[in-house]
Amino acid sequence: MANDTTQVALALDFGGTKLSAGLVDLETGRVIDRARWTTPQEAGAQVSLASMIEHGKLLASRHHDLGGALRGVGISFGGPLSTDRLTVLRSMHVSGWEGVPLPRLVADAFRLPTVMDNDANLAALSEWRYGVGQQTHHMLYIQVSTGIGAGLILDAHLYRGAGLAGEFGHMTLLEDGPACACGKRGCLESLSSGWALARDGLLALQNAPAGSPLRDAGDNASGEVTAKLVVEAARAGDGLAQAVVTRAATFLGIGIATTINLLDPELIVIGGGVAKAEDMLRPPVEAALSEHVVPPLRGRARISFWTLGDDTTLIGAGALVDGMDNQAAG
Amino acid sequence: MANDTTQVALALDFGGTKLSAGLVDLETGRVIDRARWTTPQEAGAQVSLASMIEHGKLLASRHHDLGGALRGVGISFGGPLSTDRLTVLRSMHVSGWEGVPLPRLVADAFRLPTVMDNDANLAALSEWRYGVGQQTHHMLYIQVSTGIGAGLILDAHLYRGAGLAGEFGHMTLLEDGPACACGKRGCLESLSSGWALARDGLLALQNAPAGSPLRDAGDNASGEVTAKLVVEAARAGDGLAQAVVTRAATFLGIGIATTINLLDPELIVIGGGVAKAEDMLRPPVEAALSEHVVPPLRGRARISFWTLGDDTTLIGAGALVDGMDNQAAG
Repeated sequence: MANDTTQVALALDFGGTKLSAGLVDLETGRVIDRARWTTPQEAGAQVSLASMIEHGKLLASRHHDLGGALRGVGISFGGPLSTDRLTVLRSMHVSGWEGVPLPRLVADAFRLPTVMDNDANLAALSEWRYGVGQQTHHMLYIQVSTGIGAGLILDAHLYRGAGLAGEFGHMTLLEDGPACACGKRGCLESLSSGWALARDGLLALQNAPAGSPLRDAGDNASGEVTAKLVVEAARAGDGLAQAVVTRAATFLGIGIATTINLLDPELIVIGGGVAKAEDMLRPPVEAALSEHVVPPLRGRARISFWTLGDDTTLIGAGALVDGMDNQAAG
Repeated sequence: MANDTTQVALALDFGGTKLSAGLVDLETGRVIDRARWTTPQEAGAQVSLASMIEHGKLLASRHHDLGGALRGVGISFGGPLSTDRLTVLRSMHVSGWEGVPLPRLVADAFRLPTVMDNDANLAALSEWRYGVGQQTHHMLYIQVSTGIGAGLILDAHLYRGAGLAGEFGHMTLLEDGPACACGKRGCLESLSSGWALARDGLLALQNAPAGSPLRDAGDNASGEVTAKLVVEAARAGDGLAQAVVTRAATFLGIGIATTINLLDPELIVIGGGVAKAEDMLRPPVEAALSEHVVPPLRGRARISFWTLGDDTTLIGAGALVDGMDNQAAG
């Protein structure tokens, strides 16, 4: 329970499929209180924002009852932002976000200093500050969900480059490879994301023999194939599903190897929904690293999966408030 | 000419084919005085070191005559170093360098504080401090010579990660591609380095028709094909040579695109011997960037070729003495 001396931030996480709001203890990273609900995708940005403010005010008032003061509000947004992080450029899932000055609107609603960043950067920040990345100076967080992004901790701070660093998922790994959501071809994201697993799983299903785990799962799901379904079929011993997962994880490993070669980090953290398949992903990822990391760098970087799970981004949004990385306030 | 107030460093550059020593004005990066001679490759590390100390002492005494004091000695070494940069691991060209504590030996010889780094890092430092990278915060220097390496300026300092960052040349770009010097396959270095240009040029020569620029050049050189020869044949309009150069430059562009996507730098500087072919390299590199940089990042990073030329590394070794990047002294 929070007390007078606890430093607390209000964290708001605008995800494409889920919205969440939470109170984050800045010393420990613990989520003191939270709400999580489905993003009203059809209803547009205004409705998402209104429901977020409503839940946030409820949390803030509960915190006020406990006697503490909120330090500020941290926003995670699952989509591209302006380089100064004061404006949302768009959401891939919800219309009406174009050009919305989200930190300012939230600051006005709560009368608190407000900062914003993208989900991959904030997940990196939270694992570095409160999770498996504590004590590291150079850490790469890789988010593998529907898409693939990354947040970079370099020389003990969140690295943004000229503002848009972290497009790890759009390195070209296969000439004339599959079309990617970004408009290019053969990006890592088009080969290893949850979306790619689902696509390749659906293709594999066409060849899956009757009675195989993949065919059974596909039949139960009326042929609607998700990344989760493919992973579960692979786990159940389905050879076609295993080949799909191994191929995706191998490309992920090649992408990670490229980054290790370039940046010599101490730690790689793999998170996001697809990371829940650590048991299936880790062996092929590590095999790819053994092959594609240049010999002098081989075996130096630790490979970990996320430790804060579904709260990773929310906690990172809170951590942003602590100004550890010299944010501009919204 | 140096005077009492000029801050000067002695710079020693141990390259695989050339040794150079110089006096560098730390305010302007100008090389006040220099010597450059062929590395006695057969004679081993001891002879290289002895001749370097001899030339260095001559330069130092000349500087002394001018009335100034040397701030220290900066060493560039063209080969892998220990992560603390106090020891040479080896040279690819000269035997006997294994485990040599070069900064300590040089410090003893000159009785001056001495620091060391690898050639790509120092080239990055010099272009950032004195060349085209001035005023940038995020800059990638790519050295394309016999091999391919990189030096990274991130958030306005030389980034080393856990000590070995910069192995840009060993990202895997082509599965089952050519064997690389590092022992892997399909590395950027195996596709785009001077060595790769020479290898592919020699293969192209087998198919070059009589009277073609490539065949003529090959005949004049008794069939010994260098990167320079291939570039010159391409420049003279030889279609086969042009295809070799374009393919190498395209892979270089894909590798640069990967780095832009990940790090969002303001500037890419391409240097090294192969960079002298800017006229032939730039169009295919830029075409590859247009295709492989993810759309939100496209067109943000400037692409430049080196501006300090063959002195780049030597000047960087001098700059290292200025402690701008918080080096440990040798």
